[in-house]
Amino acid sequence: MKIKCNQNIFLSSVLTVQKAASARTTLPVLEGILVQTDKDHIKLTGTNLELGIECRMEAEVLSPGSVVIPSKLLSEIVRKLPDSVMEVSLLDNYAVRIKCLNSTVTIQGLPPEEFPELPSVDGGETIEVNQLLLSDMIRQTIFAVAVDESRPILTGGLLEVDGNSINMVCLDGYRLALRTGRTEMAYEGRSVVIPGRSLSEISKILDNEDKNIRITISARNVLFDLGNTKVVTRVLDGEFINYRQIIPGDYKTRVKVDTSILSASIERASLIAREGKNNLIKLNIQDTHMVITSNSEAGQIYEEIPILLEGRDLEIAFNARYFLDILKVLDDQEICLDFTTNVSPCIVRPIDGDQYTYLLLPVRIYS
Amino acid sequence: MKIKCNQNIFLSSVLTVQKAASARTTLPVLEGILVQTDKDHIKLTGTNLELGIECRMEAEVLSPGSVVIPSKLLSEIVRKLPDSVMEVSLLDNYAVRIKCLNSTVTIQGLPPEEFPELPSVDGGETIEVNQLLLSDMIRQTIFAVAVDESRPILTGGLLEVDGNSINMVCLDGYRLALRTGRTEMAYEGRSVVIPGRSLSEISKILDNEDKNIRITISARNVLFDLGNTKVVTRVLDGEFINYRQIIPGDYKTRVKVDTSILSASIERASLIAREGKNNLIKLNIQDTHMVITSNSEAGQIYEEIPILLEGRDLEIAFNARYFLDILKVLDDQEICLDFTTNVSPCIVRPIDGDQYTYLLLPVRIYS
Repeated sequence: MKIKCNQNIFLSSVLTVQKAASARTTLPVLEGILVQTDKDHIKLTGTNLELGIECRMEAEVLSPGSVVIPSKLLSEIVRKLPDSVMEVSLLDNYAVRIKCLNSTVTIQGLPPEEFPELPSVDGGETIEVNQLLLSDMIRQTIFAVAVDESRPILTGGLLEVDGNSINMVCLDGYRLALRTGRTEMAYEGRSVVIPGRSLSEISKILDNEDKNIRITISARNVLFDLGNTKVVTRVLDGEFINYRQIIPGDYKTRVKVDTSILSASIERASLIAREGKNNLIKLNIQDTHMVITSNSEAGQIYEEIPILLEGRDLEIAFNARYFLDILKVLDDQEICLDFTTNVSPCIVRPIDGDQYTYLLLPVRIYS
Repeated sequence: MKIKCNQNIFLSSVLTVQKAASARTTLPVLEGILVQTDKDHIKLTGTNLELGIECRMEAEVLSPGSVVIPSKLLSEIVRKLPDSVMEVSLLDNYAVRIKCLNSTVTIQGLPPEEFPELPSVDGGETIEVNQLLLSDMIRQTIFAVAVDESRPILTGGLLEVDGNSINMVCLDGYRLALRTGRTEMAYEGRSVVIPGRSLSEISKILDNEDKNIRITISARNVLFDLGNTKVVTRVLDGEFINYRQIIPGDYKTRVKVDTSILSASIERASLIAREGKNNLIKLNIQDTHMVITSNSEAGQIYEEIPILLEGRDLEIAFNARYFLDILKVLDDQEICLDFTTNVSPCIVRPIDGDQYTYLLLPVRIYS
């Protein structure tokens, strides 16, 4: 194998596929990037067996071949090379020589035969989604993915398509995040649960551009196709929770509030709350104001913010961190908080429309 | 105690004195910041018993007093408050109430009597140094301070004044860094060894402005006076090494080289070298070129860079990291490397003048 390509383009491909390479594993080949020639292109692939990423790039292929190169060392070396033409050659015994101007680096590689093939999505059906929308959908829900593995299905995000509507839903035992969007075309109803780690890496790869990405969903795997970059992730087996029946349709107390004022107040309160056991903040909703308080060994805090109240007064308590997680990902200037009682969930909604629905369980307070 | 002041100014003072507050200590009062009123000013003080910092700022003093406030919580709370007028009041039992617009925070404070007084520099003599020069002197030498405590005196930097010349010298067993500068006025010869940690904090506090700082040196302490901010550090006891006799005056091989080309080559070589035992790179100096090589389990590297050579060819080896530490702090486009043999130190000097002198011990190679 012998190829010539530009340092800059090669680096950007290495950094993309590296997101799927394993950092530490008992299978050393998974810590590497598979480099393969293909006519006047090369293809780089990284995988951790759950997530696989491949990048195709133009290159001058002087002789065909393939090899696996340790991913971390490769990216560090290439990053430090000058922005010029690189020549990559396969020597004996899987050693790889990289020449760039006055630098010659030889890295010990591994046999390409040991590198696993990325899973196929044969027989899957393809939908098209706007990349900016998909990026927002992941960003605004992924924080609610379950961290502990006691219910594996909850460590993933549910992607649902039905007609022109597309949903992403993440939930753990304490909160639920639902983001809904529209597709240009209408599709038959289907849903799939994608591992949270894969969603997080996919969101980093999405271009920040107003164009579509093709998503192919098969029974075991999902392919995200960006053209030169392809991402395949396995799906999580099992039934996702029927989340619609958890979201209450009614409310007794509705609060309209400025997002950044609420967010700043809860951030300050959380500095006091985090010294306590439950990270607890209390909300006292009355007439034109919401009073946020917290007490701990470190001190006390009292925050008063203006609201528009519809319905009954209410006193209710939350875990400050969980509340902030929601507020951090919202872009709207104003939001709606719906409550029923102080032992039933709070629903965070937009003032208009139904782009997002967050559900947050309160903490019981005995006073 | 009751004061009013601006959130922004208070925050910047808190962040400055916090650099001296202890992060974890058996004496909780040292984790706090002492707030004291003084006519129409307040004074904030932090100390870890080695380094003390105090900041004076204008404030509306409604009633005098003093208290110690936990430094970490205070800075986090004040950082999150809006840029407006803050009212700080001392309540019963050392509780401190901070009001700012619609926020009221009460933090549990500590009695001010327990806070240690900053040491005095009575009887010391004062010199004036340009702040930009002092900042450069610290930045360009501090990396060579000894990390291990087996010879405590080497964990500090030597500050030497004599006539119009001022020197900072740091050294561990492997390298030496000497930066020399000029003072406007001439002073009697004196020297003092300042703990490395103190030097590092002092360099962060220096204004990036072309004006003088007053340094008062007494037998046990040194005061750095920036006007509203004062820094006192204890000095290290003992004799510093007579560094002048270590620096060779002669050379057999002199190399002129471009700093950034050399630096980029050694950076790449260090990626291979760090996988080996000694972080070893070899320099082969011959005619118009220097060849830099390194071998390890991870691979090999060969770098060839153009030089101007005066004197004999030479093959010599170094610890890549120590070499990079020096190159990173140099601003000159070209530098001089002086060598005698491959078992004697390399001297890094400017092409003109004597602003800096770095000495780096080679690693013995048996080939």
